[in-house]
Amino acid sequence: MDFEKYMTKRAKPLKASGIREMFKLMADPAVISLAGGSPDPELFPTDELAEIAVDVLKNNGKVALAYGTTDGYAPLKEELTKRAKKVDSFKGGDKIIITTGGQQGIDLAARVVVEDGDDIVVESPSFVGTLNSLRSVRANLVGVEMDDDGMNMEKLEEVLKSRNVKLIYTIPNFQNPTGITMSLEKRKKMLELAKKYDCLIIEDNPYGDLRFSGEYVPTIKSLDDEGRVIYVSSMSKILSPGMRIGYVVCNDVLCDKIEIIKQVNDVHTPCLTQMIAAEFLKKYNIDEYIERAREVYGRKCRFMLGCIEKYFPKGIKWTKPNGGLFILVTCPDSIDAAELSIEAVKKYKVAFVPSNNFRVDMDAKTSSFRLNYSTMPEDKIEEGIKAIGELLKEKLA
Amino acid sequence: MDFEKYMTKRAKPLKASGIREMFKLMADPAVISLAGGSPDPELFPTDELAEIAVDVLKNNGKVALAYGTTDGYAPLKEELTKRAKKVDSFKGGDKIIITTGGQQGIDLAARVVVEDGDDIVVESPSFVGTLNSLRSVRANLVGVEMDDDGMNMEKLEEVLKSRNVKLIYTIPNFQNPTGITMSLEKRKKMLELAKKYDCLIIEDNPYGDLRFSGEYVPTIKSLDDEGRVIYVSSMSKILSPGMRIGYVVCNDVLCDKIEIIKQVNDVHTPCLTQMIAAEFLKKYNIDEYIERAREVYGRKCRFMLGCIEKYFPKGIKWTKPNGGLFILVTCPDSIDAAELSIEAVKKYKVAFVPSNNFRVDMDAKTSSFRLNYSTMPEDKIEEGIKAIGELLKEKLA
Repeated sequence: MDFEKYMTKRAKPLKASGIREMFKLMADPAVISLAGGSPDPELFPTDELAEIAVDVLKNNGKVALAYGTTDGYAPLKEELTKRAKKVDSFKGGDKIIITTGGQQGIDLAARVVVEDGDDIVVESPSFVGTLNSLRSVRANLVGVEMDDDGMNMEKLEEVLKSRNVKLIYTIPNFQNPTGITMSLEKRKKMLELAKKYDCLIIEDNPYGDLRFSGEYVPTIKSLDDEGRVIYVSSMSKILSPGMRIGYVVCNDVLCDKIEIIKQVNDVHTPCLTQMIAAEFLKKYNIDEYIERAREVYGRKCRFMLGCIEKYFPKGIKWTKPNGGLFILVTCPDSIDAAELSIEAVKKYKVAFVPSNNFRVDMDAKTSSFRLNYSTMPEDKIEEGIKAIGELLKEKLA
Repeated sequence: MDFEKYMTKRAKPLKASGIREMFKLMADPAVISLAGGSPDPELFPTDELAEIAVDVLKNNGKVALAYGTTDGYAPLKEELTKRAKKVDSFKGGDKIIITTGGQQGIDLAARVVVEDGDDIVVESPSFVGTLNSLRSVRANLVGVEMDDDGMNMEKLEEVLKSRNVKLIYTIPNFQNPTGITMSLEKRKKMLELAKKYDCLIIEDNPYGDLRFSGEYVPTIKSLDDEGRVIYVSSMSKILSPGMRIGYVVCNDVLCDKIEIIKQVNDVHTPCLTQMIAAEFLKKYNIDEYIERAREVYGRKCRFMLGCIEKYFPKGIKWTKPNGGLFILVTCPDSIDAAELSIEAVKKYKVAFVPSNNFRVDMDAKTSSFRLNYSTMPEDKIEEGIKAIGELLKEKLA
């Protein structure tokens, strides 16, 4: 049978994310992976969570194992509302819904507001999970280049002027894959432009808590009095990605519709993981755990930047993040980052992600690539960067 | 702001499921709920799962809390493949993917194969979660009436002849909401018709293990040598619905695409719940737990049927299920089941689901309703059925 012929226009062109394909290569324990986007597993509070898991199942097992409500476990909604309020991202008229990771929040919001063929603006480069989710609802993606302080606002306005844009997707804090933070000025400008050209904004903020240098910048949501911003965040980078606890805060009309789509999608996020997360937030001060993560990631980031400085040849540029998990490296145009990444795995067993994966046009050649510093220990970071440096020197010789 | 105007054609017409809305009424502990579709919480193996949860987090916490692969935790895939093979529903060329409940399996499959406006056949009545998922991808639903032994095959062929049907959705075992089991003859016929008119079948089998009388009937998937059947099942009715562990078995070409859509939807099902489920299946004999569930549901079903016989007035008909969780009651045409259900909650605090919720046209009047016997204890079942009987006597007097 020809199964391809049954496939929808939305499904047919979708390819597996290059990053998740790379995960399969990385199953080889000898590979030094600077490709991932995971928090450091050493930071997982496994003992605390084990203790809570028993408590929940022993004392509240019938709730933990039964069907729950689609909008999420009420005590977790309360705790995460508090976290959203801390960054002034829960406004009058807003509601919160728990999602199976931040990814589901983005995907559900896309199903609610993105029609086939709608023009949607994304940072170029941007998070591949969102690009693919938007592709799966047949959005017409329009990438807008970034400056050192976020999306270029002149270019954004040009796009908004010439097209009928429905939605702007942005990761203002420690962006994936660039590590760039959008300035307050640009956040205000983006919201102003969204008003002027009547579009919505998805503000994706999974890394916001992971600042290790520089000054706090208010969320775009905190500046929004109209309900134009759909705020998405998660516990993946501050507690555990494998638990798949995310949340969306937005105007109740949109949130109610997201809830209905979630109902047809997975009924609800598993109760057990929601209850464990809620108990953790009640019983422990997560900000202390976040503080620890900030220290670790700040140290590792500085270490990786030092290695890059030491081992990379001249003519290479890179970003200097104030938080999050990623550095973007840009080589001279003669380098094809996709080829480079394959050679690095084959020759040195070092993995990183070429940034064509993060582009609207995934097939175009790119000379930049993303490095992650959160998962590997420092000796492996040094070994990995040294190997990439040698490869670059060969290429540029 | 007018948020409605941003909504997609797929999202705008979707309404919350009447059943999940009824869950809110049922928060009142005084309500006797014959409306749910949950397994009996007394059957949850909470102690065993608590013990396993600690083991998993203490000994394998870094895996349980980290990102996992989109297709699912390998040991759980193995265990569930064994269960699918037990009913000959894992054929050559097939793959399995773990989903966040069976609902996600259906929703992902719909995103892969159902195009806007495609004609999709469903049993009438059918599971509301699937109807809404199909509505959310803008399927054109075509309901085919059921006989006592499953979908009417003459009517099915009429539809297939006159329309270009892409997919048939069926729950052959102890169907939701009717409790009806499709005969082997009809299963063969449905597959034959699917071949003749070149459509796919989603065989949804969440209740298959819960047979308490009659003879085992082979799955449609077991009869399929072409890969025409997408088999969906879950652990919701045999272990825990709140854990949200489902799975899809189908031809690898479709399964790979389902995996890509899952990647954009929730990246992966939470690792912790998958690992707990895998350990449970390895460490305990789930068939013993299922045997207990069968005894309980068989007893409760017979008890409810006895009460119906005793308390319902003449002129009422009902199904006699051989398994699963539901009985469908059909009243004389003069009864509006939707009105009846509202009166029953208000006057007697008894809840059940009128079957307009399970119809393609949810707004049409219907005289039938679904009763669930798995969650309430027997004294409550008697009290509830007696109250409905009194209401029906009043109405029909």
